[in-house]
Amino acid sequence: MTSSSDAATALFESAIKGERRSLGKLLTAIERGGRQAEIIADLAHQVSGNTHVVGITGAPGSGKSTLTGRLLKLFSEAGDKLAVLAVDPSSPLTGGAILGDRIRMDDLAGEESFIRSMATRGHSGGLALAVPAAIQLFDAVGYEPVIIETVGVGQVEVDVAGAADTTVVVVTPGMGDAVQANKAGLLEVADIFVVNKSDRPGASDARRDLELMLDLGHVSGLEQMTGYRPPIIMANSLDGIGADEVLDAIKSHAEYLRNSGKIHIRRKERLVMEIQNRVELLIGSTASDILESELGAGYIANVLNRKISPAEAAKSIVGSILTKK
Amino acid sequence: MTSSSDAATALFESAIKGERRSLGKLLTAIERGGRQAEIIADLAHQVSGNTHVVGITGAPGSGKSTLTGRLLKLFSEAGDKLAVLAVDPSSPLTGGAILGDRIRMDDLAGEESFIRSMATRGHSGGLALAVPAAIQLFDAVGYEPVIIETVGVGQVEVDVAGAADTTVVVVTPGMGDAVQANKAGLLEVADIFVVNKSDRPGASDARRDLELMLDLGHVSGLEQMTGYRPPIIMANSLDGIGADEVLDAIKSHAEYLRNSGKIHIRRKERLVMEIQNRVELLIGSTASDILESELGAGYIANVLNRKISPAEAAKSIVGSILTKK
Repeated sequence: MTSSSDAATALFESAIKGERRSLGKLLTAIERGGRQAEIIADLAHQVSGNTHVVGITGAPGSGKSTLTGRLLKLFSEAGDKLAVLAVDPSSPLTGGAILGDRIRMDDLAGEESFIRSMATRGHSGGLALAVPAAIQLFDAVGYEPVIIETVGVGQVEVDVAGAADTTVVVVTPGMGDAVQANKAGLLEVADIFVVNKSDRPGASDARRDLELMLDLGHVSGLEQMTGYRPPIIMANSLDGIGADEVLDAIKSHAEYLRNSGKIHIRRKERLVMEIQNRVELLIGSTASDILESELGAGYIANVLNRKISPAEAAKSIVGSILTKK
Repeated sequence: MTSSSDAATALFESAIKGERRSLGKLLTAIERGGRQAEIIADLAHQVSGNTHVVGITGAPGSGKSTLTGRLLKLFSEAGDKLAVLAVDPSSPLTGGAILGDRIRMDDLAGEESFIRSMATRGHSGGLALAVPAAIQLFDAVGYEPVIIETVGVGQVEVDVAGAADTTVVVVTPGMGDAVQANKAGLLEVADIFVVNKSDRPGASDARRDLELMLDLGHVSGLEQMTGYRPPIIMANSLDGIGADEVLDAIKSHAEYLRNSGKIHIRRKERLVMEIQNRVELLIGSTASDILESELGAGYIANVLNRKISPAEAAKSIVGSILTKK
């Protein structure tokens, strides 16, 4: 056992006992990536697999942070010890995540809850590993549920949201927000829709757009198979309107997943996605190594000279990886 | 030579001669991906490497399509035979790209210019290959410049924009748009900034924010190395204000790249990125094959049973790939 493994194990045991500072340090290590992050992910994986994971996603400005804050308050009041992970684009200015509403969110949380931001920019591959590891860590430490808040714009963010047990997609009235969500691939991963800022003009249009899209079958394969139809909830998170309905919908969906056995399918899919991401990251770094080697420089020169195409260079590099001892 | 290779070669030769319908068919094949796309990319690569590639990116609603249309008109009027590739999120409703302003854009184009949309959703890996292949095809056929318009939200889109010779980042006043662009990683790839809708309140603030970020050095490594500082242009694309200034800035930047020899560095980086993307896609499919095999099912079961961790499963799978004959 190495000393870095010892340190991670000590922090992990301390976090399991309820040491919040240890949990914070473990999350920082997960965010940073590398060997330490992997040790922590391995430890957490062994004792995880129980918590319900809720993904909340929507465009910037859709009020999903405020809704998350409302849910945090409702869960906390009901005595739940929950964790919130806000996945934010990071700022090169600060080197960390821009917190936005996070400060107010702390006021809403119960003593027992844990709130954390995670940066995404510059290492989308890292995010794909860090988020599942953080979920498993929260799970291992005993947080239930775990809420993941993401900005639903990039493919990675959609993947992260889609990896949740229950995915809540937040849209706002006007500007074809439902159409935008559709474009971003969010409709297909949604288990619950929230039309936020429902006092604004166009709220009923947004609802109708979503109903139509559901009618047309542009939703997760789940509905086709099982008859589960994502509810559409009108909300105004600023006033707290609709948040209790969202909470009920999350609980109903969790119950539906458990009763139907679908929860096992979702969790298996999540693990398969994680394994696949880890495989691609491992091999991607092998490819980078080769590209930066003398061999790689030769391929690049030949591509620049139009002697071979990028596809041919890629095949040769993959060939040299596959035959590597 | 296979028949699919024959067909691609025939289409390619016809496109080189100026057959627009053949060019359209080639672009469709590139978008679809697979073997045919690769043959076309190989053919195009052999005779490409000359055209100047301009990336135009910004958040949805920043007016970048309108600006692109204005530039299209100015280039066309100056006698340039240019191509515009609009990279749009696709809609599951239509199965294709939502065209938005594209119809009006056709009105702006000269007889000689070529406008095309490309869908992104559902295959970000595919986009990473299709866009460079389309650029090389336009290049081979003799379009100059090639303008790539992307929505600057996801990492893939930033990568695509950043792979251009000259990258134009469009922001709008208000709502901390410059800060959002910063978050998305757009500032670092920008060669030219456009503050669009400059008649709106907050336009001068947006300009000041950008100047500040430039002062703080949050820009491409290029500035640090060479003293090139991205200009900030106030524009109102709806009225056409500022478009000629943007055109001049693009030409100045192209000249700067040529005179400094930096153009070769950019193009080499673009090719290396393309090779890397192709390697990762090739190996990713090998990983998928293994995950779907009996061997993979065994690993997944062990991960589900908490006997091994996802990281351990990934390492074993990579091991079996690396030792594969």
